[in-house]
Amino acid sequence: MDLRDIREPADLRQLTQAQLEDIASQLREEIIRVVSKNGGHLASNLGVVELTLALHRVFDSPKDKLIFDVGHQCYAHKMLTGRLDGMDSLRQYGGVSGFPKRSESPHDAYDTGHASTSISAALGMARARDLQGGREHVVAVVGDGAMTGGLCYEALNDAGHQKTRLIVILNDNQMSIAPNVGALSNYLTHMRTSKAWISLKRALSAFFLKVPLIGGWLFNLLQRVKDSIKNIFVRDRFFGALGFHYLGPIDGHNLRYMEKIFQRAKRFEEPVIIHVVTQKGKGYDYAEQEPSNTHGVSPFHPENGQPKSAATARSFGKAAGQLLVDLAREDERIVAITAAMAESTGLAPFQAAYPARLFDVGIAEAHAVTLAAGLAASGLRPVVALYDTFLQRAYDQVVVDVCLQNLPVTFLIDRAAMGADGPTHHGVFGTALLRHVPDLMLLNPRSIEEMEGMLRFALSHPGAVFIRYPRLESARMQQLPAAAFRPGVWEHLTPPGEICLVATGPMVSEALAVREMLSTQGLQAQVVNASSVKPLDMDFLGELTRLDIPYYVLEEQALAGGLGSAVSEACVQRQLKLPDYLFALKDVFVPHGSHDRLLAHCGLDARSIADSLLGMRRMVS
Amino acid sequence: MDLRDIREPADLRQLTQAQLEDIASQLREEIIRVVSKNGGHLASNLGVVELTLALHRVFDSPKDKLIFDVGHQCYAHKMLTGRLDGMDSLRQYGGVSGFPKRSESPHDAYDTGHASTSISAALGMARARDLQGGREHVVAVVGDGAMTGGLCYEALNDAGHQKTRLIVILNDNQMSIAPNVGALSNYLTHMRTSKAWISLKRALSAFFLKVPLIGGWLFNLLQRVKDSIKNIFVRDRFFGALGFHYLGPIDGHNLRYMEKIFQRAKRFEEPVIIHVVTQKGKGYDYAEQEPSNTHGVSPFHPENGQPKSAATARSFGKAAGQLLVDLAREDERIVAITAAMAESTGLAPFQAAYPARLFDVGIAEAHAVTLAAGLAASGLRPVVALYDTFLQRAYDQVVVDVCLQNLPVTFLIDRAAMGADGPTHHGVFGTALLRHVPDLMLLNPRSIEEMEGMLRFALSHPGAVFIRYPRLESARMQQLPAAAFRPGVWEHLTPPGEICLVATGPMVSEALAVREMLSTQGLQAQVVNASSVKPLDMDFLGELTRLDIPYYVLEEQALAGGLGSAVSEACVQRQLKLPDYLFALKDVFVPHGSHDRLLAHCGLDARSIADSLLGMRRMVS
Repeated sequence: MDLRDIREPADLRQLTQAQLEDIASQLREEIIRVVSKNGGHLASNLGVVELTLALHRVFDSPKDKLIFDVGHQCYAHKMLTGRLDGMDSLRQYGGVSGFPKRSESPHDAYDTGHASTSISAALGMARARDLQGGREHVVAVVGDGAMTGGLCYEALNDAGHQKTRLIVILNDNQMSIAPNVGALSNYLTHMRTSKAWISLKRALSAFFLKVPLIGGWLFNLLQRVKDSIKNIFVRDRFFGALGFHYLGPIDGHNLRYMEKIFQRAKRFEEPVIIHVVTQKGKGYDYAEQEPSNTHGVSPFHPENGQPKSAATARSFGKAAGQLLVDLAREDERIVAITAAMAESTGLAPFQAAYPARLFDVGIAEAHAVTLAAGLAASGLRPVVALYDTFLQRAYDQVVVDVCLQNLPVTFLIDRAAMGADGPTHHGVFGTALLRHVPDLMLLNPRSIEEMEGMLRFALSHPGAVFIRYPRLESARMQQLPAAAFRPGVWEHLTPPGEICLVATGPMVSEALAVREMLSTQGLQAQVVNASSVKPLDMDFLGELTRLDIPYYVLEEQALAGGLGSAVSEACVQRQLKLPDYLFALKDVFVPHGSHDRLLAHCGLDARSIADSLLGMRRMVS
Repeated sequence: MDLRDIREPADLRQLTQAQLEDIASQLREEIIRVVSKNGGHLASNLGVVELTLALHRVFDSPKDKLIFDVGHQCYAHKMLTGRLDGMDSLRQYGGVSGFPKRSESPHDAYDTGHASTSISAALGMARARDLQGGREHVVAVVGDGAMTGGLCYEALNDAGHQKTRLIVILNDNQMSIAPNVGALSNYLTHMRTSKAWISLKRALSAFFLKVPLIGGWLFNLLQRVKDSIKNIFVRDRFFGALGFHYLGPIDGHNLRYMEKIFQRAKRFEEPVIIHVVTQKGKGYDYAEQEPSNTHGVSPFHPENGQPKSAATARSFGKAAGQLLVDLAREDERIVAITAAMAESTGLAPFQAAYPARLFDVGIAEAHAVTLAAGLAASGLRPVVALYDTFLQRAYDQVVVDVCLQNLPVTFLIDRAAMGADGPTHHGVFGTALLRHVPDLMLLNPRSIEEMEGMLRFALSHPGAVFIRYPRLESARMQQLPAAAFRPGVWEHLTPPGEICLVATGPMVSEALAVREMLSTQGLQAQVVNASSVKPLDMDFLGELTRLDIPYYVLEEQALAGGLGSAVSEACVQRQLKLPDYLFALKDVFVPHGSHDRLLAHCGLDARSIADSLLGMRRMVS
């Protein structure tokens, strides 16, 4: 049986157990092949191969709705729903997305990307179904990591109260992005290690592996399976209190057994949660051994799991984490907070050096920020490290808990630019999201050295400071001399010219490239590093007014509410010369693709900007 | 014993039971007197009088930290911590805040205002204490309503996992702002109604009311109390699964018994939750009978609970809710969602007319928005009604769940202006928060009629529409003829003049007053109603460029990222004439006070604006 013969999920329903096992192997091979080539989410996708097969055999997608929380586990689903051929373009510009997309297939019932949304969305679909008189099933597949997010709890609480018919599959792989934290995780472990579950698992494995499913055996077999199923309902406290029926825990790599339980869940008229235990990285040694490091990966050699290209660019997050280790030695007040991402935000060395001073709160960004406010209110110096896109989860806490109380919390905001994961993950709204909040500072370093100056500054500043940077430092920055950071003072990277390019963050590097291109056309541009977005350098804006030369603002952020917007407002209020044009992201969502490709897509690559500037000049002259 | 003799909590610790009961009565009288005069939160504050006394007798504030979630229950606390005399200025400009404020008293350990933050903040303080080697207690007091918020769950999960020493008091009054919803609420009810609890409550009431606490009785008494306490630990599932010790439920109006349990809780080295049952409105007939309607109140007659002034101004929310009832009759796809505020957002008539189509999700704004996305993805037309300040909790869901999928969700955003409750509740960041998100429309009606046009439009629009309005329509608007709403087209309320005032939302009324003032000084101003903030009326901005007259943008929103910012950006990008000045909120938090007083505080009252404009004119001429 060739995986290529599965054109739609219905094709799976005819297959024998042996054929299904074969398909599972081919899915794993294909996942490893595609991810080793394009990068992507590896361990989580390898862990749900059997789970995905069972879902598509028992439920009738797209009539029944399958919602994959976060979407780090949708590759097998995509391969089984007509997108196998497209997977070579996974995560590439114009290609298949790394996340479920309604625009790609009717089998993708709901777009995900941020954790913990699936139960809320599924509940909405289930209630729409009930109002419309439908009978289809709505299934949310959610990891134990995502289950630490408060949004899941809000949805469980609502669903359990109203008794809406709904199936939640808890994909318990004992870790989310990092080894999982939280009391709920302990609780799930407790259930997984219960005697009943272990003996049942053993019995069933023997049972299904050895007995052929043919002839007269069938009836007896089914009878015995039914009896076993009755026994597996381990006494549950947590989900029961929230009004859910609980089935589990069950082995997420035992296809037949999962199917039985799913069939049983279909008969409930009330909300039911099925606790499925899977192994992250299943079937690929390197991923099984290092599930944390193989969660999201760059292209690698499939034969040994090693990355194809050694990273040469320096990581902002790693550098920040390292400096924090040094600073924390001198200052006992420094503590750090991560939301399940100590490794990827650079806090792992801090965690190793000061385990008691690192708080990993799980996928719970809102709590991370309020926890920081509590720590700061008691005299500590908390540093919260988050991705820009996930800070979106904690806006209210930034406003009400941190800034309104004017508490000294430092935010290290990583991935504050466009990234390979697409519109759910670009860090392009952060400036607009934060700039209007009183009593905070907003800083974008152009280089690691500048970031280090900002971090030292932030840890002695009496209020909130947000330091926002992309993943990697641009190569061009390493060739420039380091500059000392001064809040509210912009760095003049090149001498004054006929025009001025006011750039911030990753666009400083692009602005220098623009300058070179313009120079070949006889136009001399000054490049200014506007690393302090809030406060602005009002002296320099006054100077630009005095010089009366055209100037432009460049940023890899949404135009609305961004740095260019800040400069424009300030100039209107003080009757200063306005910028001549703002180079920033227009009012549309940016798709996925490589960073270079996306810059061009948005007209923010050096070539496009230089051409625009030359065009404007021709129009004027 | 006079309440006035209690200068600090320590004074309570000497009192007899009879004296304490007397103090409790006086606190209730004072709460009723102050709230009847100034308005405020009534029923919730009446319910926690004994709880507050018990807290201050057992814990040693400010060394021990008391954090009141939301802060709707801090009046007795304020009266007992040196602010009794100040209470006459409650909620008035420059007076005592209706919420805990660190700036007011060291006894206010943490500022609250939005629900569900207290456990996270307390956990931060507890961890800071442990790192600093302190031994003080940290106590979070949180209502059962706030417990429906996901942030509480995230904090419980974290605290229970790390076993941080911490006391959470669940103030279970069986409702939050409205009768409480959610499976957890059912679960708490189940515990409250358990036989063990009822019989214990009865026994203890008899016990404490009849036996004098003197002489040789004491030892036996304490012994018997201890035995009773052992029995009250009703088997708990939910909090136990999250790693908390659970004590309760206990009677929140039995002071002595509460104190015993609190003393016991102090001995735990791990997180403990105490389930205290209180009656909202306790001790005031009108409030006991209508706890929902006496949650937040305007000034009223204490002798009969009736409001002092009949409201004459029309409520935007009520009108929107009523129209929704009519529209839903024709269109079965219309459903509505509230986060525990059906009454105050105007959805109560909809709830009565279509109970199956109204979803009250509890205090869970993030879930409300993702639920709406799920409903919309299945073909329904969800309307989410929230206060502007609480929408801050759901920014990420607006971006990722609604707008990125371009789903047709209508948002009725109430209190989108400055309000009496102060900086945690002003709705002044909404424009900046939303304007940069692609694929949404942002509309500010000047009048009820315009809002109705917007709501009809939104329900047939294929994407997200946000209709943002203050609580009440300005009286001036009722005198103007109604205008038909057209998206992206601004209404010319008066003929062209020497200058133009581009105003939005509640500032349209102020702009008309400004126009009258200017007119008496011989300056003719046109007033334009920029009700469509996104999209802008680009034709009109082009027309202003052609006319080349000074123009000004007026809004009761943060300047950074607001309408004036939008106009400035658009004009820079298209080389149009820039506004001459932006009248908006500066980059500071606005305190509490009456709306008129706050407008003047911010320089946004008609008089201040007119004076500014006349001053600018003098400078030019």
